[in-house]
Amino acid sequence: MKLGIIGLGLIGGSMAIDLKRRGFADEVTGVEADSVNAAAAEKIGLVDRILPLEECVATSDLLVLAVPVGAAVKMLPGILDMFRKEEEDTGACRRTVIDVCSTKEQLSRTVHYHPMRTHYVATHPMAGTEYSGPWAAMPGLFDGRAGIICNQEESSPAAVHLVEKMYDCLNMRLIYMNASSHDVHTAYVSHISHITSFALALTVLDKERNEKHIFDLASGGFSSTVRLAKSSADMWVPIFSQNRDNLLKVIDTYLEKINDFRKAIDSFDEDGIRTLIEDANRIKRIIR
Amino acid sequence: MKLGIIGLGLIGGSMAIDLKRRGFADEVTGVEADSVNAAAAEKIGLVDRILPLEECVATSDLLVLAVPVGAAVKMLPGILDMFRKEEEDTGACRRTVIDVCSTKEQLSRTVHYHPMRTHYVATHPMAGTEYSGPWAAMPGLFDGRAGIICNQEESSPAAVHLVEKMYDCLNMRLIYMNASSHDVHTAYVSHISHITSFALALTVLDKERNEKHIFDLASGGFSSTVRLAKSSADMWVPIFSQNRDNLLKVIDTYLEKINDFRKAIDSFDEDGIRTLIEDANRIKRIIR
Repeated sequence: MKLGIIGLGLIGGSMAIDLKRRGFADEVTGVEADSVNAAAAEKIGLVDRILPLEECVATSDLLVLAVPVGAAVKMLPGILDMFRKEEEDTGACRRTVIDVCSTKEQLSRTVHYHPMRTHYVATHPMAGTEYSGPWAAMPGLFDGRAGIICNQEESSPAAVHLVEKMYDCLNMRLIYMNASSHDVHTAYVSHISHITSFALALTVLDKERNEKHIFDLASGGFSSTVRLAKSSADMWVPIFSQNRDNLLKVIDTYLEKINDFRKAIDSFDEDGIRTLIEDANRIKRIIR
Repeated sequence: MKLGIIGLGLIGGSMAIDLKRRGFADEVTGVEADSVNAAAAEKIGLVDRILPLEECVATSDLLVLAVPVGAAVKMLPGILDMFRKEEEDTGACRRTVIDVCSTKEQLSRTVHYHPMRTHYVATHPMAGTEYSGPWAAMPGLFDGRAGIICNQEESSPAAVHLVEKMYDCLNMRLIYMNASSHDVHTAYVSHISHITSFALALTVLDKERNEKHIFDLASGGFSSTVRLAKSSADMWVPIFSQNRDNLLKVIDTYLEKINDFRKAIDSFDEDGIRTLIEDANRIKRIIR
């Protein structure tokens, strides 16, 4: 099995490590547009070789498109075009491509009518850290986490089966849903947490001009709540933009909740504050 | 050195563990109003004995008032009254009492004119977890964290020195500030993170009615951002109430930042979203 990873950041790099070590791939080649990151990925040993995109596509059984979703929307049709050219030229193309992006609807719409659509599987491994780049890649990143496969009926059974084997090798629990549900649910659970965390960082940096105070007074609580505010703009700008409609709804609910706290605190309504906190505590039942 | 801990929850219990193990206290007695928690604290071995409040005060060189700040405001004058009675009866009282609460101004105002004020030291160890009760107590909770001493000029030098020795034994970095600055800065850095986290939990529980989806889609990012939403109402209701004025200011700034994101996302302003995220990323320079 030859694996090609397009985009050697946290997700692509971490997949490269485990899929090679655990024997899923005999060879891992990579494509990386940023020359510094490409040199680092080779030096760290994430991939066996860095290749130009066309060569990587032409030599990989399975391609993982692990670039920010704005770039993925532009690149995916081109990769399927290369598959088509190969089929026209040689009579067959047995390659599969997956993406690993955090929004799925726009990608799915973009290639919905592509003649090679069945060679593409839309996936989202629910794992990550606030760090990015090949230096952030680590073994075991996906172990035990959820891996989502979207619109699997639009992919060929053979392609879906291959991807299931890959995620099984990464020890992920597989979940199946359609692309538009995926984008609703990830807005509700994952994307909103990034907005609240970015806004918290902006607030603290704005109100507390003394950085030494922030450092001194940041107990573990603040650090964990603000952790996601270190996340990269390259990754999150296209996610927020592509998932706009779902995000606006959840932001509006969130603004209501903050305003509920504001009102209760403003009017010294201790019973009201208690009710809000005890309602929020229900999250304990779900998240350990 | 006989240490008396009033309130055997996460903070009081964790202090009891390390101050005994590390030799600061020869004997640790405790006061606990909740009978289940009292029995648990004795069974776990957090304290040598549970005593009634009066007896604990009458036999301890150093008392740690580790109850929620609403109760602390009610109990602290009574403890200083007992010190005064002892001085009147015997000619001397050499006992010291500290509190470990997250708001300091109301406590400081409450005992400002008390004739035994110099026997009290206002402190705030910046450490904790989202768990509470004697079961949550753990060794090493305070190691390396900041410990704040407020209005130390109102305490006797001997009392301050004793408390400095105690926090040194807990491996805390000491910081000195006045009570009103303390409340401003903790609102800006610590208290607001709890509000954003409670509101996030309420939002997700409201929008995402399917709890299995929350569990499945909660990557590490959501879990860490929502962690503080497990915190107890008993502790946080009086903090929010006592720190109302500072909190309202920081909540208003926070609402502005969330609205900045809302506007940029609503108008597909990708440059605006990028600027907000990159501004927020500055927190990386301060928080590891």
